[in-house]
Amino acid sequence: MSYKRAVSKREFAALAEFRHRLRHFLRFSEDAARSVGLTPLQYQLLLQIKGMTGRRWALIGELAQRLQIAPHGAVSLVTRCARAGLVTRVPSQGDRRQVQVFLTAEGDRLAHRVARIHRQELESLAAVLRDIHSIGST
Amino acid sequence: MSYKRAVSKREFAALAEFRHRLRHFLRFSEDAARSVGLTPLQYQLLLQIKGMTGRRWALIGELAQRLQIAPHGAVSLVTRCARAGLVTRVPSQGDRRQVQVFLTAEGDRLAHRVARIHRQELESLAAVLRDIHSIGST
Repeated sequence: MSYKRAVSKREFAALAEFRHRLRHFLRFSEDAARSVGLTPLQYQLLLQIKGMTGRRWALIGELAQRLQIAPHGAVSLVTRCARAGLVTRVPSQGDRRQVQVFLTAEGDRLAHRVARIHRQELESLAAVLRDIHSIGST
Repeated sequence: MSYKRAVSKREFAALAEFRHRLRHFLRFSEDAARSVGLTPLQYQLLLQIKGMTGRRWALIGELAQRLQIAPHGAVSLVTRCARAGLVTRVPSQGDRRQVQVFLTAEGDRLAHRVARIHRQELESLAAVLRDIHSIGST
């Protein structure tokens, strides 16, 4: 897909459909998190810790970057999650100013439950994106 | 992807990557709308009108459904867009209580500009979703 070529009627229809599905997906995802007692952002935090490759923890700065939020926002979010029993904080061995955030057993259990609920919705979203891509490249 | 099967470490990594990219995409999209003087929601409205198949207008109720917002929210959004010269409202021929929302030439021009800016970002988002799908189905 080139940046400059005009957007065809068909491509607009596919883009509009994708954004409609995306808004639907985000509402679905928020409801899925709330159905197990998590806020949408708490679920996103648990998911980013689960998604770290090669280790079971994440630094606050990494979480801020992955969630695209300000560092002080990540600090408060982690504090709220720790109070809710979802994560624990452990000072880093190498640099005591750094904090490693781990999931608790409860945080891990809820991350699994919400991720499973998402599966079907993600599949249908992927199908819509494939449509846009095939239209844009013809 | 089955609903019940446990979520593997690899699938979590792909889900986390997708949500990170999605948050990045949504920020990118908001910035793209603002770069031409639109709010993110105004752009979504213009896009949904452009995306209607077989006609160049949409009813308020259709826009509310496509944007997943309340009908009275759609009414105010359309009013704000009309004041900004992006859309015009025409009472429906068949039922005068229904309002058809059309893009103005300016609304059409801005919808094209913002949609073009989105192309590359959408491509990379589609690639991440393909990854999740291929992991989930193995």
